[in-house]
Amino acid sequence: MEINEFFELSIGRWRSQRSGHHLAFAHFEEVLSNIDIESLSTDDPTVLEVCKLHDIDSASITHPFRMTWEGESDWDDKPISGSTVLVPIPDIENPSRGKLLRENGYAEVVPAVGRYHLSDDGVFTLLTEYDLVAAEERIWFANPNLRFRVSMIKTSDGKGVTTASFSSEIRSLSSSTS
Amino acid sequence: MEINEFFELSIGRWRSQRSGHHLAFAHFEEVLSNIDIESLSTDDPTVLEVCKLHDIDSASITHPFRMTWEGESDWDDKPISGSTVLVPIPDIENPSRGKLLRENGYAEVVPAVGRYHLSDDGVFTLLTEYDLVAAEERIWFANPNLRFRVSMIKTSDGKGVTTASFSSEIRSLSSSTS
Repeated sequence: MEINEFFELSIGRWRSQRSGHHLAFAHFEEVLSNIDIESLSTDDPTVLEVCKLHDIDSASITHPFRMTWEGESDWDDKPISGSTVLVPIPDIENPSRGKLLRENGYAEVVPAVGRYHLSDDGVFTLLTEYDLVAAEERIWFANPNLRFRVSMIKTSDGKGVTTASFSSEIRSLSSSTS
Repeated sequence: MEINEFFELSIGRWRSQRSGHHLAFAHFEEVLSNIDIESLSTDDPTVLEVCKLHDIDSASITHPFRMTWEGESDWDDKPISGSTVLVPIPDIENPSRGKLLRENGYAEVVPAVGRYHLSDDGVFTLLTEYDLVAAEERIWFANPNLRFRVSMIKTSDGKGVTTASFSSEIRSLSSSTS
């Protein structure tokens, strides 16, 4: 799989089933959500703003997208929801690697920059370092309508892993995002 | 990571936290178990028997091991337990790929042969085809004392995925397997 295909396959609405593992106590969390991944044009005002925030020339970007999620956890009565814009910047010499700019970080609510690469067997790995923690995600497609995502949060020295989660994401074929 | 290091790091006792996703109904299953992975010598009688069962010359094998598990699921009152012997046979031209002989299959209780490979970013993928279904597993180390395992069961035509599961496995440093 090429990286462009990876980004293009990700576009759509996904029904996500997520299990969180809180490792020290072997606790389980269950989350059901809908995730919308929507392609943006490279001259979308929000995309240009993200580029500006990170001081990046918008000519070097590819496949920007907006991700929106809405769900419920068995740990919390409040619904979980959010939205962020993500902007990939492929490395010039090796397009299966690159940086991913993020409007708001996952683990901390600040703009974040991650490093990604796509392995020879189609696993997309994203590493994002924050001040206190780092997040590592691996995403791959079982088939075009089913993708898996493993995320973990580790201390920024990379040694301690506090939580890991696993999402099975099934493409919603019948519904539009509107 | 080299494949030998992968097999060697796997030896030990692991405390496993597993989430099963039953995809069609978005059901969650929670399993807690202990997994013992014990190195066997290449001339262990059980190993020789597995080789004979599969008509394989025992000179071509490497790192045979026994895996034993004991746990509990929130779906079932009965404890889950079992044991199997696994025997890797690396490909001669490319040792990061090979076959894995199994005394008893995971998805069906028959002897099974899987195909494995280790990707450039350290993810070990194992594909085992049975009569009616196929099992695909991806295993990788977050650090030497923490490994993750994603398994999925698909119909043997490779299209339908019925269940997926995610295990976080933490090495038990304090206890022996005896």
